[in-house]
Amino acid sequence: MAELGTLVLLRHGQSTWNAENLFTGWVDVPLSELGQQEARKGGELLAEAGLLPDVVHTSLLRRAISTANIALDVADRHWIDVRRDWRLNERHYGALQGKNKKQVRDEFGEEQFMLWRRSYDVPPPPIERGSEFSQDTDPRYGPDAPLTECLKDVVARLLPYWDSAIVPDLRAGKTVLVAAHGNSLRALVKHLDGISDEDIAGLNIPTGIPLRYDLDDNLEPVTPGGTYLDPKAAEEAAAAVANQGR
Amino acid sequence: MAELGTLVLLRHGQSTWNAENLFTGWVDVPLSELGQQEARKGGELLAEAGLLPDVVHTSLLRRAISTANIALDVADRHWIDVRRDWRLNERHYGALQGKNKKQVRDEFGEEQFMLWRRSYDVPPPPIERGSEFSQDTDPRYGPDAPLTECLKDVVARLLPYWDSAIVPDLRAGKTVLVAAHGNSLRALVKHLDGISDEDIAGLNIPTGIPLRYDLDDNLEPVTPGGTYLDPKAAEEAAAAVANQGR
Repeated sequence: MAELGTLVLLRHGQSTWNAENLFTGWVDVPLSELGQQEARKGGELLAEAGLLPDVVHTSLLRRAISTANIALDVADRHWIDVRRDWRLNERHYGALQGKNKKQVRDEFGEEQFMLWRRSYDVPPPPIERGSEFSQDTDPRYGPDAPLTECLKDVVARLLPYWDSAIVPDLRAGKTVLVAAHGNSLRALVKHLDGISDEDIAGLNIPTGIPLRYDLDDNLEPVTPGGTYLDPKAAEEAAAAVANQGR
Repeated sequence: MAELGTLVLLRHGQSTWNAENLFTGWVDVPLSELGQQEARKGGELLAEAGLLPDVVHTSLLRRAISTANIALDVADRHWIDVRRDWRLNERHYGALQGKNKKQVRDEFGEEQFMLWRRSYDVPPPPIERGSEFSQDTDPRYGPDAPLTECLKDVVARLLPYWDSAIVPDLRAGKTVLVAAHGNSLRALVKHLDGISDEDIAGLNIPTGIPLRYDLDDNLEPVTPGGTYLDPKAAEEAAAAVANQGR
């Protein structure tokens, strides 16, 4: 049997709303200047490692799309095949979309705030149809677009795309870049590494640092957790996230 | 029978080598600042006209890819399906690639210069394999990549892609953006409008201005020559090209 291709995950860098500390979800905000720099750095890491994608899968959100465009241009792989799908989108944050994170924490309390952010199966309240930050009339989504999601929902909608679109590229021996979001990538890593519903709460994927997974024929990681192309930067970023709000 | 979708052609804006007056062909140079501005303007024109692509076809060259990325981001259509193919590439300029246009004119004379630039079936001398500006070892092309091309060669390699990849999208009722190059778009327009081998020499497509073609069921233009989204700018650009070198 042919050897499987290599999977490379890349979480988009800072968006303008990350910088403003707003819940973003499916709101389609651009990368900040810093986020563009992170994407360039991601492309440099790919090029330095000689880890050159043959195909890229992105979400339908411009912060992931721009990250892929910038990184691939830097790595001289701007010309590869492109696949986009809403199933790689960030988690839909429901009624929290567009709200300031600190204000939500102050209004609802730390416990509820952390439940919405980190529980596996408690979604925020659904967003109101037709409201400023909802996507129910966005032409890129059908009327069945979610109005809120928990991480469990993301896993459920992501896996059919993994099986039907990404795995075939890996089985064809391709190096596959997936440029996506904190929670869609956590959902994928949960599946790949068999992380429990409880333990996934503690997993953060740093932005802009390509994460390499070599998979065996059963699609299980040869190295659990994969390998960051810049392990030191990834460790520092993880520590910074763990200290957020302390 | 379902109505055909709309075809929109977009020629990339100024590249760094356009700015330096070098023959470019398949050499993969980036857009200049002006070229990026032209792409943004192209996206604004699409948005203003409400002419929103469902799918984009590009060449494998970054000046066309970046033009599409920028224009689609401006038009809020960054998330559409993407197809790339070398058959949309610029004409391969053979041994002239990387050479200054004025120097070539001085060295070979006006007649030979214009024959290479504008004749339908006289290609420049082939580029040497393995030389600085050849593409024979570029991973995106196979060993059969051309070493030079005349416009007739471009028509011959473009049409199979038109028939097999672009026409099906139009038949599916999609609005199709083709972001490409001076000569690959001239080849396509020659085919669509039935322009003779002689008359195509006089046709220039301005950069950065979307050109709309509505086609009937026989794939013939409802309005011969199509319609520029900014007719005045297109006319001025055509006049400027006609006056080049006078």
